[in-house]
Amino acid sequence: MKIKMQSDHTILQKINQTVKQLADPKTYDMVCHEHRLGEPLPSTEKLARIVNMVREILFPGYFGNTSLRPDTIRHYMGVYVDELFELLSEQILAGLCFTCDKQPEEIDMPERNRFAQELAADFIAYLPEIRRILVTDVEAAFVGDPAAKSRSEVIYCYPAIRAISNYRIAHRLLELGVPLIPRIIGEMAHSETGIDIHPKAQIGESFTIDHGTGVVIGSTCIIGNNVKLYQGVTLGAKSFPLDEHGNPIKGVPRHPIVEDNVIIYAQATILGRITIGKNSVIGGNVWVTNNVPPDSKIVQSKARETAFSDGGGI
Amino acid sequence: MKIKMQSDHTILQKINQTVKQLADPKTYDMVCHEHRLGEPLPSTEKLARIVNMVREILFPGYFGNTSLRPDTIRHYMGVYVDELFELLSEQILAGLCFTCDKQPEEIDMPERNRFAQELAADFIAYLPEIRRILVTDVEAAFVGDPAAKSRSEVIYCYPAIRAISNYRIAHRLLELGVPLIPRIIGEMAHSETGIDIHPKAQIGESFTIDHGTGVVIGSTCIIGNNVKLYQGVTLGAKSFPLDEHGNPIKGVPRHPIVEDNVIIYAQATILGRITIGKNSVIGGNVWVTNNVPPDSKIVQSKARETAFSDGGGI
Amino acid sequence: MKIKMQSDHTILQKINQTVKQLADPKTYDMVCHEHRLGEPLPSTEKLARIVNMVREILFPGYFGNTSLRPDTIRHYMGVYVDELFELLSEQILAGLCFTCDKQPEEIDMPERNRFAQELAADFIAYLPEIRRILVTDVEAAFVGDPAAKSRSEVIYCYPAIRAISNYRIAHRLLELGVPLIPRIIGEMAHSETGIDIHPKAQIGESFTIDHGTGVVIGSTCIIGNNVKLYQGVTLGAKSFPLDEHGNPIKGVPRHPIVEDNVIIYAQATILGRITIGKNSVIGGNVWVTNNVPPDSKIVQSKARETAFSDGGGI
Amino acid sequence: MKIKMQSDHTILQKINQTVKQLADPKTYDMVCHEHRLGEPLPSTEKLARIVNMVREILFPGYFGNTSLRPDTIRHYMGVYVDELFELLSEQILAGLCFTCDKQPEEIDMPERNRFAQELAADFIAYLPEIRRILVTDVEAAFVGDPAAKSRSEVIYCYPAIRAISNYRIAHRLLELGVPLIPRIIGEMAHSETGIDIHPKAQIGESFTIDHGTGVVIGSTCIIGNNVKLYQGVTLGAKSFPLDEHGNPIKGVPRHPIVEDNVIIYAQATILGRITIGKNSVIGGNVWVTNNVPPDSKIVQSKARETAFSDGGGI
Amino acid sequence: MKIKMQSDHTILQKINQTVKQLADPKTYDMVCHEHRLGEPLPSTEKLARIVNMVREILFPGYFGNTSLRPDTIRHYMGVYVDELFELLSEQILAGLCFTCDKQPEEIDMPERNRFAQELAADFIAYLPEIRRILVTDVEAAFVGDPAAKSRSEVIYCYPAIRAISNYRIAHRLLELGVPLIPRIIGEMAHSETGIDIHPKAQIGESFTIDHGTGVVIGSTCIIGNNVKLYQGVTLGAKSFPLDEHGNPIKGVPRHPIVEDNVIIYAQATILGRITIGKNSVIGGNVWVTNNVPPDSKIVQSKARETAFSDGGGI
Amino acid sequence: MKIKMQSDHTILQKINQTVKQLADPKTYDMVCHEHRLGEPLPSTEKLARIVNMVREILFPGYFGNTSLRPDTIRHYMGVYVDELFELLSEQILAGLCFTCDKQPEEIDMPERNRFAQELAADFIAYLPEIRRILVTDVEAAFVGDPAAKSRSEVIYCYPAIRAISNYRIAHRLLELGVPLIPRIIGEMAHSETGIDIHPKAQIGESFTIDHGTGVVIGSTCIIGNNVKLYQGVTLGAKSFPLDEHGNPIKGVPRHPIVEDNVIIYAQATILGRITIGKNSVIGGNVWVTNNVPPDSKIVQSKARETAFSDGGGI
Repeated sequence: MKIKMQSDHTILQKINQTVKQLADPKTYDMVCHEHRLGEPLPSTEKLARIVNMVREILFPGYFGNTSLRPDTIRHYMGVYVDELFELLSEQILAGLCFTCDKQPEEIDMPERNRFAQELAADFIAYLPEIRRILVTDVEAAFVGDPAAKSRSEVIYCYPAIRAISNYRIAHRLLELGVPLIPRIIGEMAHSETGIDIHPKAQIGESFTIDHGTGVVIGSTCIIGNNVKLYQGVTLGAKSFPLDEHGNPIKGVPRHPIVEDNVIIYAQATILGRITIGKNSVIGGNVWVTNNVPPDSKIVQSKARETAFSDGGGI
Repeated sequence: MKIKMQSDHTILQKINQTVKQLADPKTYDMVCHEHRLGEPLPSTEKLARIVNMVREILFPGYFGNTSLRPDTIRHYMGVYVDELFELLSEQILAGLCFTCDKQPEEIDMPERNRFAQELAADFIAYLPEIRRILVTDVEAAFVGDPAAKSRSEVIYCYPAIRAISNYRIAHRLLELGVPLIPRIIGEMAHSETGIDIHPKAQIGESFTIDHGTGVVIGSTCIIGNNVKLYQGVTLGAKSFPLDEHGNPIKGVPRHPIVEDNVIIYAQATILGRITIGKNSVIGGNVWVTNNVPPDSKIVQSKARETAFSDGGGI
Repeated sequence: MKIKMQSDHTILQKINQTVKQLADPKTYDMVCHEHRLGEPLPSTEKLARIVNMVREILFPGYFGNTSLRPDTIRHYMGVYVDELFELLSEQILAGLCFTCDKQPEEIDMPERNRFAQELAADFIAYLPEIRRILVTDVEAAFVGDPAAKSRSEVIYCYPAIRAISNYRIAHRLLELGVPLIPRIIGEMAHSETGIDIHPKAQIGESFTIDHGTGVVIGSTCIIGNNVKLYQGVTLGAKSFPLDEHGNPIKGVPRHPIVEDNVIIYAQATILGRITIGKNSVIGGNVWVTNNVPPDSKIVQSKARETAFSDGGGI
Repeated sequence: MKIKMQSDHTILQKINQTVKQLADPKTYDMVCHEHRLGEPLPSTEKLARIVNMVREILFPGYFGNTSLRPDTIRHYMGVYVDELFELLSEQILAGLCFTCDKQPEEIDMPERNRFAQELAADFIAYLPEIRRILVTDVEAAFVGDPAAKSRSEVIYCYPAIRAISNYRIAHRLLELGVPLIPRIIGEMAHSETGIDIHPKAQIGESFTIDHGTGVVIGSTCIIGNNVKLYQGVTLGAKSFPLDEHGNPIKGVPRHPIVEDNVIIYAQATILGRITIGKNSVIGGNVWVTNNVPPDSKIVQSKARETAFSDGGGI
Repeated sequence: MKIKMQSDHTILQKINQTVKQLADPKTYDMVCHEHRLGEPLPSTEKLARIVNMVREILFPGYFGNTSLRPDTIRHYMGVYVDELFELLSEQILAGLCFTCDKQPEEIDMPERNRFAQELAADFIAYLPEIRRILVTDVEAAFVGDPAAKSRSEVIYCYPAIRAISNYRIAHRLLELGVPLIPRIIGEMAHSETGIDIHPKAQIGESFTIDHGTGVVIGSTCIIGNNVKLYQGVTLGAKSFPLDEHGNPIKGVPRHPIVEDNVIIYAQATILGRITIGKNSVIGGNVWVTNNVPPDSKIVQSKARETAFSDGGGI
Repeated sequence: MKIKMQSDHTILQKINQTVKQLADPKTYDMVCHEHRLGEPLPSTEKLARIVNMVREILFPGYFGNTSLRPDTIRHYMGVYVDELFELLSEQILAGLCFTCDKQPEEIDMPERNRFAQELAADFIAYLPEIRRILVTDVEAAFVGDPAAKSRSEVIYCYPAIRAISNYRIAHRLLELGVPLIPRIIGEMAHSETGIDIHPKAQIGESFTIDHGTGVVIGSTCIIGNNVKLYQGVTLGAKSFPLDEHGNPIKGVPRHPIVEDNVIIYAQATILGRITIGKNSVIGGNVWVTNNVPPDSKIVQSKARETAFSDGGGI
């Protein structure tokens, strides 16, 4: 008996028919992006290289392939910053093009290119300040965690440092007016660490997050200095005003203000434009939708004992 | 003084002894998989390429390397679908082989191969419908999030879209009877996004998840249209009936039914085969194990103030 | 009109100025790591290969590229263990060097190298025991999850198995005295699965975690046999004693003891050196900071109905 | 005894001193290429992809990853040509920039970009003609080699087809006025096959080279139809007129004209602007610097016997 | 002034028109290969891995990533041979499919698959004999070259060993009846080393080639033991009988027989079914088309002095 | 009908039997290399990176990924030289270990490591001199080839520059006493370009090779300044004195001396310790085994016409 390996007519017909449907503009016009020839595309691979390069610049000797020595650091900084400038200019340009609604004939590419380079240079000029702030974050994580053996371990291993670094990078890019790219950088950290900080949030110095998985910090949050969050903490929106079409109005402040020296324990959910007063401690798993005065300590109402009769459950 | 770099007899003996133990069938027979010559293996790398290809087909111009232009979309769809068909046929075949308990001589490989191709073609024929539903999901995410700048940003950056896409792909493959592969695709999204949707769950249109880390949707869940979940929401099982050997009985409905237009806030835990009635809003951090009637709004009981005297804690 | 593509003087000056600042030791001395010539560096890529190799050794035929057959397993074990020995020796040496504060002239590299090899061999000698325990974990996950189709699916897909494998590997390395490397291996699983188990925690047999995202198990936890955790469970510290400088005292027991046969549901937060007595069931979303006697069942206090008038929120 | 792993002062001083010398413009100004920001660079990797893509377009189903089927060829051609257009436009632009001596402010980048795209499109429009001619070359190789089993083997394995394909691609690009890129494409084939055909040479149809290693065809050669060369054949220049500074005058015809139906055997060296008349056969290892009339057959003068007394030599 | 980046109508029309031509079967039917779904394709990458694996098996410790030690060699041989068997079975199957003219319904794939496995196993069973012969080749190269420092250098660096290894591998595969694959393996060595040995040639033991670039050994050559060739030597065909259609008759013996202990110097061209008698020495650059009796020594006729007047040439 | 995919007993037995033979020390002891734990291995990949790095250092802006600008060259030189130092130290160490016959206990690894670093630093200190000489080679190639459009084209494309660069690198390493590595670097160029220059040969300035495939320059050659070779030229050994065992005596001068300003045309074979006097021109395809006085011009004796009657041959 011989067998027939070829996919027969039925299969091929089914496939060809589907290709036709998938290529019908009616089916994809809401979810496609038309690329204009000659414009760079945002690239998560290049953005990952950018973030790694910034990390290597900020924390010399930890990341990247290089072996830092005092007599070579000047050269490495020069080369990394130079490569960063080229890569970042291109990705900023990609962000500008991706979010641009103009017709091709309305675009002055050389001028846009030049603008992207200026933004990249402005970002680079801010790197020393980002390093200064991250030093305070590293210190806060080290001092605040009895399990931390050394600052090296914190820098090398702690997901919070990775997430906060990406946040501080993305926040600065967003402040400079770069579209799309900050959000992608934020989501890269979200995927790696489970910590979701919106690049638009404002966060003070000596900020730390322990463990971190599930933390959410909304776009209009304002966080003071010396704040510590545990895993699963949400600083979110409770509700948002709708416009006449029933759509949420964008840009309205709707996330919490967390003042200096606040600690929020695991899984606490703090919603709405409320203020958690300075020096407060919020216990885990609570649901907070009202202002909390300074120096408060709040915990969940007491759990209760119950009795169940069934098998493996509760 | 000369030094001795060679690992000495003790080390090598220890290693050789361990190899012997590790190769003893008694120690691995519960946790090994015997591969039959000539059968393809499930490959997370190939499945990742499959998922990326499907994403590029569904959302043309966003993912992949291609630069979509109206005059080329037909060709790209044709090539992507063709490559998808080959890759997917092979991985479906791998899934069929991996979970097969028959003896080699009982297997009709050409027929199985043919069956895998038919399943792949059936999946492809469903892609336009998946695209149609995902458009409603994208729209729900865009409209429901004041921080979303554009549909592009939603498609490109939002982890929920990634997780829901994988779910809709995996769900269809599971409906077609493909073993193992749907679960792997689901776990790929789980790892990337922290959102864990079982491929067997049934989920309606205009579904959206905000932030998403920690969301769990169990295998017998039924979710209506226009439902929104926040991060950390569990739609899980409370308990499950045991069989005479004390093992859980598989396949019994044990996860919630969530009706249309329900919103569930962060970290809420909804357990058991209960129904959350339509238009209800469930506050964050609540523990719900009973039916909730339509149009309900439920929040956690009020938190309480406490006083502590010790150092950094609560 | 001609255009000027070159970045002009202003941009270059800005960049050069920044390079100078970034290379100023004052700005980086808290956050840099000086590499000593000739010492290996910890490498997340090599550690990932090590973990994959261990997984392939422990669960033959599932991971890696190999196709296991009974007549070849001895050879594969021999080759994998041999490669593991070389890679692991190097990474242990890298860990020893990375955390070493001595001056170069105080270090006896050949002796340290030899010590790293001995640690690697000791770890390898423990692999059969790790496999034995992991078999109990796989069994617990399979028996305890009605959605699990087969042990194969559990081994291949379940993030808990991945996280617990990394934990058992890292825990053994830490017991042997290897610095830094165990923590990196733990964080690799944390990033992939959202499950954060400190390598120092002590965990019994037949341990399982369902879904898992957001689980945190602190460094001084002690967990008995046959314990099951759901996603988002925290076994953390409530507070920690401070030393005379206001810094937390390291190494003090401060995380829960969870006795045999305990089940803890989603998002429960258990804090402090308390004991959850054997056979207890802790409901989801509770905040527990006191001892729980054996055979207890605890759930959150009842949620309350509320009424809201505003748009999309709660 | 402790050992000193650090490279000492002497080594580092030596290195630092050398860096200074190497960065001194006087030492590199003859051999450096200054890159202008924002201009693409010629890339041998991208050119290799371009050549592979052209090969896949010309000989469908042989190269690349694709599995050609009649119902999909149109789509594959569409996608490959589209990708080729983008890649080639960029590399042509890179060639134009690399060889440009103008100051940045004199360059109109958008216009140059547009020009590169036009050249790429013109090249693509010539592909069907290149395919037509290559069919004659494949046929000549197949018919002329008793060892060739099939046309498939010729297309898949014969280095001559690879070298002639690169030549015909490079020749067309050079005719269109593309700088540098044609030469790089020619040298890629030279490195792979040992066959060195200058892109400027003019070569007729049904051209074939057997084995090929060492063949050299100079830039002003003119070769008719149905010519066959064996390995090691040189069609070179004997001498070239010098200008008043003693430098060779560029562009003067100085390589042979080889008329239709000529066969030249291995290692023959034909030099100067001479003509090998049609239907001639040139034997191996001869040195020819004068015209050869049509229908000639020329071989080396007879070898002689000698006697040696020493060991392994001659 | 705004610029227009989009490629305009003319360019796109040109491209679309070309795609149509290139997809017209009339233009490609002589030079395309139709792939049948489900059949493996010959892959130069996989064949390169196969050749590297064979080299590592034959010369343990030189190639590949492994570090050979006496206590591990058995395991490495087991694993390499096992991987070789799988890879080679697949590529032999690919070769059988590629050269098959049957209709799909005439092919019994399982039987063909089985046949490929048997050929792979037969090849593997011959590996010890290939190693035995290659030892004689290595010895001949080492003894015969005063510049060779050690056998290690010969094995690691000498292109002749690479080319002869590929030849001995390809020759055995061809003897077993494997189509296409031997030729590809031969051309891989040709491209790397410039040495072109037809897999069908018959070559004795202790064979060596010095330098090697440009050597050609035709398919019907017969070479005895202890023969040494220098670079550029051709053992080729002088002419070949034509059939009634003017096409060369395939398979007729038409290349030289070289008896034991012959040395042939650089660039010598030996053509036709002639015999170079044992112990002969052939000088460089000669053209030999007649039998050479045993113990002969032949050199080119004496060069002559000339006088030229022009510039840089001859 | 069911089919049997498993390879049966016969195949597996054949394979297992072969593994046993291949692992028998008697069969491989002449052709294996035993690796000592902890010693680096020579790596062609790392050596390729070393050569590329040196090329980028010598010809800034041509190779590598960097975009050279005057204000960044100092940094790039610093970083490249630093990376080169680490990579090269390791590979020199690998070379020292590979060729070492001592027992492990006789080796002082730290001292050997230190020695490797010193050799690497000495090589680096010579780079400016290598650049100075290569500038003369580039100039000679540019001036001597009417087809060369620019020095850029020569540096970027000419295989001779690649081969001569590798030679000058390898020659210096060999002079410093580095074993094995120089030969590997030489063979890398041989494989890429077909030009085989022994690293031990001595070659003056302004040296150029046109086309180059097949050129061989033996280990005891001495070549003056301003010499030009064409493709296929051999500067080889005619015979070599044998020792009492019939083996060639190593290290005896046996290759030609070529004085200043000599040109040698394609395929000429110059053998033995003879001298080609300055300003001489040697025609192609000649066989020269005697001294040639200065200012000579030598060509092959005249070819002869012949008549053949048979088909496609000569």
